[in-house]
Amino acid sequence: MNIRQFKQRVKKCRHSLAVRQTVAFNDVDMMGVVWFGNYYRYFELARAAFCQKLQLDFEHVQKAGYELPVVRSECNYRNPARYNDVIEIEIYLVPPDRPMVIFMYAVRDLGERLLAFGTTEHVVCLNREPLISWDNAVRQWLPEELFDGI
Amino acid sequence: MNIRQFKQRVKKCRHSLAVRQTVAFNDVDMMGVVWFGNYYRYFELARAAFCQKLQLDFEHVQKAGYELPVVRSECNYRNPARYNDVIEIEIYLVPPDRPMVIFMYAVRDLGERLLAFGTTEHVVCLNREPLISWDNAVRQWLPEELFDGI
Amino acid sequence: MNIRQFKQRVKKCRHSLAVRQTVAFNDVDMMGVVWFGNYYRYFELARAAFCQKLQLDFEHVQKAGYELPVVRSECNYRNPARYNDVIEIEIYLVPPDRPMVIFMYAVRDLGERLLAFGTTEHVVCLNREPLISWDNAVRQWLPEELFDGI
Amino acid sequence: MNIRQFKQRVKKCRHSLAVRQTVAFNDVDMMGVVWFGNYYRYFELARAAFCQKLQLDFEHVQKAGYELPVVRSECNYRNPARYNDVIEIEIYLVPPDRPMVIFMYAVRDLGERLLAFGTTEHVVCLNREPLISWDNAVRQWLPEELFDGI
Repeated sequence: MNIRQFKQRVKKCRHSLAVRQTVAFNDVDMMGVVWFGNYYRYFELARAAFCQKLQLDFEHVQKAGYELPVVRSECNYRNPARYNDVIEIEIYLVPPDRPMVIFMYAVRDLGERLLAFGTTEHVVCLNREPLISWDNAVRQWLPEELFDGI
Repeated sequence: MNIRQFKQRVKKCRHSLAVRQTVAFNDVDMMGVVWFGNYYRYFELARAAFCQKLQLDFEHVQKAGYELPVVRSECNYRNPARYNDVIEIEIYLVPPDRPMVIFMYAVRDLGERLLAFGTTEHVVCLNREPLISWDNAVRQWLPEELFDGI
Repeated sequence: MNIRQFKQRVKKCRHSLAVRQTVAFNDVDMMGVVWFGNYYRYFELARAAFCQKLQLDFEHVQKAGYELPVVRSECNYRNPARYNDVIEIEIYLVPPDRPMVIFMYAVRDLGERLLAFGTTEHVVCLNREPLISWDNAVRQWLPEELFDGI
Repeated sequence: MNIRQFKQRVKKCRHSLAVRQTVAFNDVDMMGVVWFGNYYRYFELARAAFCQKLQLDFEHVQKAGYELPVVRSECNYRNPARYNDVIEIEIYLVPPDRPMVIFMYAVRDLGERLLAFGTTEHVVCLNREPLISWDNAVRQWLPEELFDGI
């Protein structure tokens, strides 16, 4: 996914949320910049906040037998972040075309400079089996926003 | 706990195990040394290997209603470790005087130089309640070595 | 350090700061509670914010040849924190009696319930040698609050 | 990158290395499986071992003004890994067609079952500027294997 593809996909997203985080001392490597793998922790923070906004009750969903395991993750790095930098992680919910939930993420500094962008792709599983189609049952448990446009 | 106290307590331990680990790039901070909090991850590695050696079946124990939550952790830092250093983490099982499991840890480089030493202290809980005394039930589930000397 | 000792030492601290953090999905272990080692990451967050409040310019201090390596860390665990819990980490600066910087930390939930408390102890090094006494040079570089009461 | 593309690219790689690691307690999330972001830590372990095998002296390279920052990372997840599982991470060096270093990774269990596969892509920077072409200078500093086939 290059930056053009990212921007095109994000344009179609109707739901997003931005969270702020200060870069921790232990997020930074011996080169003085955030270690590349830690961006996935930033993605996770944004996703948790987004799921709360959607009132996606994790335990509720889990008890109903649903899971949303990550099947692919990707991050592209444009500019480094450093210790004590305040960063903003924006998460976008991509309109689904299959029983998958796809999030896109942009990490920016407070001057709106893009530091990184990426994605996590999640399949919807019921009792450990991936769903073939969105059915009515899953629509009872997952927030309406996930089915936006279906 | 100072180094003298550590050595005295370790002398009484009859069970120990050493594991080796190479310091990962992302374990090291911007000062070029292992971030202090990562030593607890090294302790965890040694404890996992030690529990396997004792044939402590985690799931088995858990199903029987037992847990061993950490109630205290401590680490003392003597010499830094750096990227790609091979370190040896030795774990010692302290003979118990109450229904607690106490581990001590020493982290050394391959030249036997002490880098850090510390402890984790675990209470034994049955159905989320701390045990007051070692009873026969718990002795069925936990390895004999844990009761050594009782 | 037991809870009584903690409370007595904290009472003497004149400088403190509280930061809030939401427990991340990846902070939590397979028992559904924050993994014990992650509390040191929470301590680090509070210390970074506190150093910013003191206007302790990390790079400035470093260029002047000073370092504050951790020589001991300790954490006591009282109540578990779970995924999405909002926690408050309060950091206290202990008045120094030697060229050491000692921080104490309390982690609480929003209902003021104590989850954990601990400490990190730092020696002051100049050009990699620990300082024997607070001298005038170090007082130029480090914030006045660190010498409070000396 | 799907599994077919991965296999095709890996077929052309002449240099690879496999390292073993036991899944740590704190690598696993509350669903009982390795948190997706931790696979990048496994990738990092394999890369460190591979660079050692190539005798790529990190400090040497750094002093000469070179850096190899990650510009893209990706991981695809096929099967979960659990606490205490022994996993094997194989790293492959992709023959370069530009001044980039591309690694591919496969994570398998000891029964050769594929758990995850992915990539990290690194640009070669000299004094913080990306190289346009492989020049003779860089070939003095980087291992011959990186230029295999050029």
